[in-house]
Amino acid sequence: MSEVQTNQQFRLAARPVGLPTDADWQLTEEALAPLEDGQVRVKVLYLSLDPAMRGWMNEGKSYIRPVAIGEVMRAGAVGVVTASRSPRFQPGDHLSGAFGVQRWWTGAVDENSGVVKIDPALAPLPAWLNVLGMPGMTAWFGLTDIGQPTAGETVVVSAAAGAVGMTVGQVAKHLGCRVVGIAGGADKCRFVVEELGFDACIDYKEGNIATGLKQHCPNGVDVYFDNVGGEILDTVLTRINMKARIVICGAISQYNNTTRVTGPSNYLSLLVNRARMEGMVVFDYAARYPEGVARLAQWLREGSFKHREHVVDGLENFPSALLMLFEGKNFGKLVLKVADA
Amino acid sequence: MSEVQTNQQFRLAARPVGLPTDADWQLTEEALAPLEDGQVRVKVLYLSLDPAMRGWMNEGKSYIRPVAIGEVMRAGAVGVVTASRSPRFQPGDHLSGAFGVQRWWTGAVDENSGVVKIDPALAPLPAWLNVLGMPGMTAWFGLTDIGQPTAGETVVVSAAAGAVGMTVGQVAKHLGCRVVGIAGGADKCRFVVEELGFDACIDYKEGNIATGLKQHCPNGVDVYFDNVGGEILDTVLTRINMKARIVICGAISQYNNTTRVTGPSNYLSLLVNRARMEGMVVFDYAARYPEGVARLAQWLREGSFKHREHVVDGLENFPSALLMLFEGKNFGKLVLKVADA
Repeated sequence: MSEVQTNQQFRLAARPVGLPTDADWQLTEEALAPLEDGQVRVKVLYLSLDPAMRGWMNEGKSYIRPVAIGEVMRAGAVGVVTASRSPRFQPGDHLSGAFGVQRWWTGAVDENSGVVKIDPALAPLPAWLNVLGMPGMTAWFGLTDIGQPTAGETVVVSAAAGAVGMTVGQVAKHLGCRVVGIAGGADKCRFVVEELGFDACIDYKEGNIATGLKQHCPNGVDVYFDNVGGEILDTVLTRINMKARIVICGAISQYNNTTRVTGPSNYLSLLVNRARMEGMVVFDYAARYPEGVARLAQWLREGSFKHREHVVDGLENFPSALLMLFEGKNFGKLVLKVADA
Repeated sequence: MSEVQTNQQFRLAARPVGLPTDADWQLTEEALAPLEDGQVRVKVLYLSLDPAMRGWMNEGKSYIRPVAIGEVMRAGAVGVVTASRSPRFQPGDHLSGAFGVQRWWTGAVDENSGVVKIDPALAPLPAWLNVLGMPGMTAWFGLTDIGQPTAGETVVVSAAAGAVGMTVGQVAKHLGCRVVGIAGGADKCRFVVEELGFDACIDYKEGNIATGLKQHCPNGVDVYFDNVGGEILDTVLTRINMKARIVICGAISQYNNTTRVTGPSNYLSLLVNRARMEGMVVFDYAARYPEGVARLAQWLREGSFKHREHVVDGLENFPSALLMLFEGKNFGKLVLKVADA
């Protein structure tokens, strides 16, 4: 394989106020550095587009350092090794890692790099950014470790047709729970019920969420897996059971706020119901990813677990594709295809 | 002891909007019913005035049923048995129970009545409504069971000079924690530091809470015991450590709201810090009260634990005395003296 000479990257040009605009990005082109000892060169094939990326663009302390102005935008990705000066990986190996929004990644691949080999025979490459990637791990560990549902309990998940939500719901069904999704639009709701086997889905664009919860959660809510925050979180708080667990995984409704985040007015329901609200960040479970991948891969092989990716083609479409997340325009895990394998 | 013939009671006349007013109460007088089998007659000596009482006056589902219109207002109390047709208690026994805002209580005293015998030799009667009563139990179980602080951690408690707060802080000191209180006014702050041994206290009426937390919690906040909600909760959320625990015990700043409760805007700090916010209601620990009383009584006997009550005299002063809680006018556990022993 002959070595290419140039790379193309999206760099953060400015910290966005509200929704990111084109002015917040700079598309750069630069020569590839020579490969050093211990490094590999990866041709990026698919990029993961995630709501969390919006948070990485902000200044200030969070669970991960912000992307610096001028830095290549951080992104999870899968790619193929084209050259290697590391004993860990060989050309032709498929890898996943935080390769960033660019065509080529060159870097060291020690144990702490987070770069791991993936098996495209087990599932198509985009699925490694979905059910077998970060969203899948977020769903698996967030639900089982923080939510801790038991058979017969009712689990509600928001952004139910999103990458995390669809896995949360299917895991909960496998655990014997009643599962109710909240999603935007009839298509998404039909999908999670008819394709994924959720017991019900509330279309937040159509009707009243409180009424929907009352109807579809006749025994109340034991676990709520929250990806959205805002009014939906507040409404679910009115329907929780004694000793309920609320997993705070994200708050996509609030990420582009230019005013203060809306806090949950009904948080005193935690007191009344002796309930718990707890945050989770998937990176904490890095050492246990193989355990999560093994379980989900087994269900995939058995045919009892589904995944869906929404693939947008072309690195150049990164800025507009990212916005789809915040407009609810993606249907399934949003993935940007950068190159053919 | 000759039997009295009349009782006097404060009944709930209307559901208050905002702060309770005189119009929300009705002072009634009625003949005492004859004592039935299994019942005792209790002369009420001291009533406990608690922020939670405001919640009991509202309609709607909560952790305990609302007081009905026309019903004697619910209140914890201590009193002395004047007549008994129960084998459990004898005239002269001191009891604690939910005797209500009245001069005399007549009722059955089975195992489920929540009426228990207390020992006035161990601590003065008002202390049985404080450190050895509900507030003490709330502090003990809320802190140890939900907050779970370990030696060396930093514990912050709001309403630090209140009944629950002063016990929370002293328990945390006994457990080897750094303890920082938040209270209103220089006197209260001086008291919790100089008399109770807190490491520091932030006067929310004086200065900036964020600055105070920064100064007095140099290693961040591991456990926050929240009695107040509102802006104080929101500010503490900006200073919590990884895996912090927030005990939601009350929200006195919000109880008289005529608008929506202010939710914590900074709740996503739970996500960033993988932290937990959990509600507690002391009644859940009823079976374990003897365990809590034993530990606190031991520290009282050893002289390593203090308590302070603010006693207001006269049943007729109930409506105005209750308001002191919401104006921060009480200094120590607020108790209404109804009669001499």
